[in-house]
Amino acid sequence: EETLDSVMKKLKEALSRLEHPPSPVTKSLSCTSIKASGTLASCPPGMIATGCSCGFACGSWNVQNENICYCLCPIIDWTVARCCQLRK
Amino acid sequence: EETLDSVMKKLKEALSRLEHPPSPVTKSLSCTSIKASGTLASCPPGMIATGCSCGFACGSWNVQNENICYCLCPIIDWTVARCCQLRK
Amino acid sequence: EETLDSVMKKLKEALSRLEHPPSPVTKSLSCTSIKASGTLASCPPGMIATGCSCGFACGSWNVQNENICYCLCPIIDWTVARCCQLRK
Repeated sequence: EETLDSVMKKLKEALSRLEHPPSPVTKSLSCTSIKASGTLASCPPGMIATGCSCGFACGSWNVQNENICYCLCPIIDWTVARCCQLRK
Repeated sequence: EETLDSVMKKLKEALSRLEHPPSPVTKSLSCTSIKASGTLASCPPGMIATGCSCGFACGSWNVQNENICYCLCPIIDWTVARCCQLRK
Repeated sequence: EETLDSVMKKLKEALSRLEHPPSPVTKSLSCTSIKASGTLASCPPGMIATGCSCGFACGSWNVQNENICYCLCPIIDWTVARCCQLRK
């Protein structure tokens, strides 16, 4: 059975926790580039493609499955996926 | 008038809430591609363009109003806007 | 020495704070485009490059140091860095 004292003790702890709440976890945007030969480049798990770059000056690409860059020009030697996520 | 009991009861509820705070809502980065014919492609409301892709291998583009991709080459058959936002 | 009254007073304040927690700070994705002549364009401090655009229709670029767009084609008159961050 809780006594007044034990509840008072818990109360004081709770009040101090309230007065000094843990600082909220702040996240930031974090990105990396993944380069692969050929027409496809995949982002690591948990990351998403925000843009793609292609060899041979090609600016035509699309993103498959939200994380795979696919360069669309007929001749492509490499593909880069620009991959981002939120990280603590 | 609050009695000691009612305050004690509220205290215990508050303490248990403090001990088991609701898990903070975590957001993640979410993106989608919007394709349109011609030189312009617009992101849906609330989303922002992080990159653009253009037809005819064109790699020259700019972003208008933070959410409209505009492909700058003389001959453009389609434009893709890569659109992102934070989502729960 | 804390009296029961002072603890009770603090308790009530704490309970009301618990019942009306400050609304959590929500962040959103914010981006901007930085244009520079030549082959390099740098994002402002704290921002990260999510994609790049180049003059002369060039779609081949990479990102250096996570915030510098570098256009790779032999003839480049301008470079645009698409820069993003999380902002309140």
